[in-house]
Amino acid sequence: MIPEQSASQITVSEDPLCTEPRLTSFDSSLTPVDLFFIRHHFSDVPKLDAETWTLSVEGEVENSLSISYQELLTLPQRTLPVTFECAGNSRVAMSPPVEGVFWGNGAVGNAEWTGVSLRDVLNQAGIKNTVKEIFFEGADSGEEEEQGLKFDLSYSRSLPLDKAMHPDTLLAIRMNGESITPDHGYPIRLIVPGWYGVASVKWLIKIRALDRPYQGFFQTRRYVIIKEGEDKEQPPKPLTAMPVKSLITQPRRGKVFFPGENVIQGFAWSGEAKIRRVDFSTDGGKTWVKAQLDEAPSDYAWCPWSFRWKVSKPGYYMLAARATDESSNTQPLSGVWNYRGYAINSIHMVPIEVAHHVRMPGESLPWEP
Amino acid sequence: MIPEQSASQITVSEDPLCTEPRLTSFDSSLTPVDLFFIRHHFSDVPKLDAETWTLSVEGEVENSLSISYQELLTLPQRTLPVTFECAGNSRVAMSPPVEGVFWGNGAVGNAEWTGVSLRDVLNQAGIKNTVKEIFFEGADSGEEEEQGLKFDLSYSRSLPLDKAMHPDTLLAIRMNGESITPDHGYPIRLIVPGWYGVASVKWLIKIRALDRPYQGFFQTRRYVIIKEGEDKEQPPKPLTAMPVKSLITQPRRGKVFFPGENVIQGFAWSGEAKIRRVDFSTDGGKTWVKAQLDEAPSDYAWCPWSFRWKVSKPGYYMLAARATDESSNTQPLSGVWNYRGYAINSIHMVPIEVAHHVRMPGESLPWEP
Repeated sequence: MIPEQSASQITVSEDPLCTEPRLTSFDSSLTPVDLFFIRHHFSDVPKLDAETWTLSVEGEVENSLSISYQELLTLPQRTLPVTFECAGNSRVAMSPPVEGVFWGNGAVGNAEWTGVSLRDVLNQAGIKNTVKEIFFEGADSGEEEEQGLKFDLSYSRSLPLDKAMHPDTLLAIRMNGESITPDHGYPIRLIVPGWYGVASVKWLIKIRALDRPYQGFFQTRRYVIIKEGEDKEQPPKPLTAMPVKSLITQPRRGKVFFPGENVIQGFAWSGEAKIRRVDFSTDGGKTWVKAQLDEAPSDYAWCPWSFRWKVSKPGYYMLAARATDESSNTQPLSGVWNYRGYAINSIHMVPIEVAHHVRMPGESLPWEP
Repeated sequence: MIPEQSASQITVSEDPLCTEPRLTSFDSSLTPVDLFFIRHHFSDVPKLDAETWTLSVEGEVENSLSISYQELLTLPQRTLPVTFECAGNSRVAMSPPVEGVFWGNGAVGNAEWTGVSLRDVLNQAGIKNTVKEIFFEGADSGEEEEQGLKFDLSYSRSLPLDKAMHPDTLLAIRMNGESITPDHGYPIRLIVPGWYGVASVKWLIKIRALDRPYQGFFQTRRYVIIKEGEDKEQPPKPLTAMPVKSLITQPRRGKVFFPGENVIQGFAWSGEAKIRRVDFSTDGGKTWVKAQLDEAPSDYAWCPWSFRWKVSKPGYYMLAARATDESSNTQPLSGVWNYRGYAINSIHMVPIEVAHHVRMPGESLPWEP
């Protein structure tokens, strides 16, 4: 079943459903639910009912638990604005092209998530000191093909214990103040701030404490960086935190500006550090000037930036934005090609045209009669 | 009106209709009509009737003519296998992305065209010695936007006199031995061997001899190379002959091979010269070996090539093919970015995986129970 879809998003894949908004529709720092990208992994969206839903907590724990939605509501709540993107966002920029959902640049969003610290629930269960990782399973499942063989799988991922125990890692109940919609993980979604969206398991139904690293499909065969020429004997590492990145949201590529002042806008974020600055270029990255940076609403949320560009000369320009974070990480001109096209944080460029504002004396367009 | 479309092609644009076959469906040197890419410029496909169709020949000529389909059939006929591609083919490889129909690599085909030498008709009309170019108009027309203004335009292009007078420039009546289909220019299509498809005007209805260069929309605003940073005062030059290029048609990207011998296939062509050699790489162009090259059926047709690749080591490989023509032109690793994404002949790369053919002793896939 394909759920109803917002007309304001582009369908990047029909089955499983994947949608992204146009970058030019990002006009405020908080992304409305109907403009938030959707990345499903299987055909069916789980139909869960908060009344009957339970979350089991099991494995290497003192007390296995089964928690109801009502119980979660009684625990202390936190609210955090969190930006995350799909690990395959901007895949369209990877050349040669790779397999995978062919995302443009819109598979990123910034929403306000409200819920219970995962730590509070894990402490209630009592984590044994043998535990290395916490495993999470969603209610979504389906078939995946690998090396010519087919497997029935549930969507599942794990976190190292320290990230799971961080107070900001949430069992989220609300998105932008409302119940989470079915497309975004109703009733409960794990939220792992600073990490790629892949970690924030939707339709969460099971937590298991493990005394060993989890080797699941979405952790060893997908959402891992495999470089060209890589040997198959080397087990790849799962993706974790998002590197520093920025996007230009205004103008869209191909826009025609006129001489005068034109406003350029965008967002910048970094999973593990605050954004220190954003630089802006009109010549494809040869020269840079500092853009105006707004304050982010939280350490995990993107910073809006803008630039008032005064241009007088008609011609063709390549706009570019480059963010730098407080750990001095910055964006590469082009990223390292990898087999599945993940973790692309190369500088976003937008080609535009500056036309004559009015016809020059004697000027006519050449195909006019 | 959108015409019926072959299920074996991908719709790249719905309006105007643009379709391309999957590269893996190119399995012979002559492209069947239902696998030949379609590039319309306007919503409507002209509905012409060969019984009533006429071609006017006018301008700087001794005798203006109006030629019927029946008259064309009585003139001497030539048959030529001709490869041409859309000037925007492979635009998907251009990063940052540009405006325009977002072609993969399939907007290229090799068909056998039969018709009358344009020269015979021009000689009949008598070209005056003031003539510099020959102008061609198709029956297709519609609206285009430019610098915020809208224009009603017919599709039209010109050729320099020497190219128009070349005996291989045809008024084509047949494609692969049959009447040309409406999508490909019925009843008569200009065929300009060696040049991008843009020159081969479909639904041809008018020829005009000009004593000056033609400055039409599809010749000065489209199908021209505009580089980043280009000044608007410099009039760009229209695209003409296709540069040397090759494509890998087998395997598709993401294919899983097994150790042993695997066959790689593709085509190579160059508008102005014969293909001298094709080199093949399994490491993304770091090292090359010579591929097997078949003879092209004509100087204007692509050469099939193949390579029998013996591989023993499981891993991830980047296949690449590079053609060189008899004028020693070869393909660049990456092309020069240009504002509309034209004339992309950079080396085609296809990432693939070589898996273990059988499970190794003790091996299990990590997500298996």
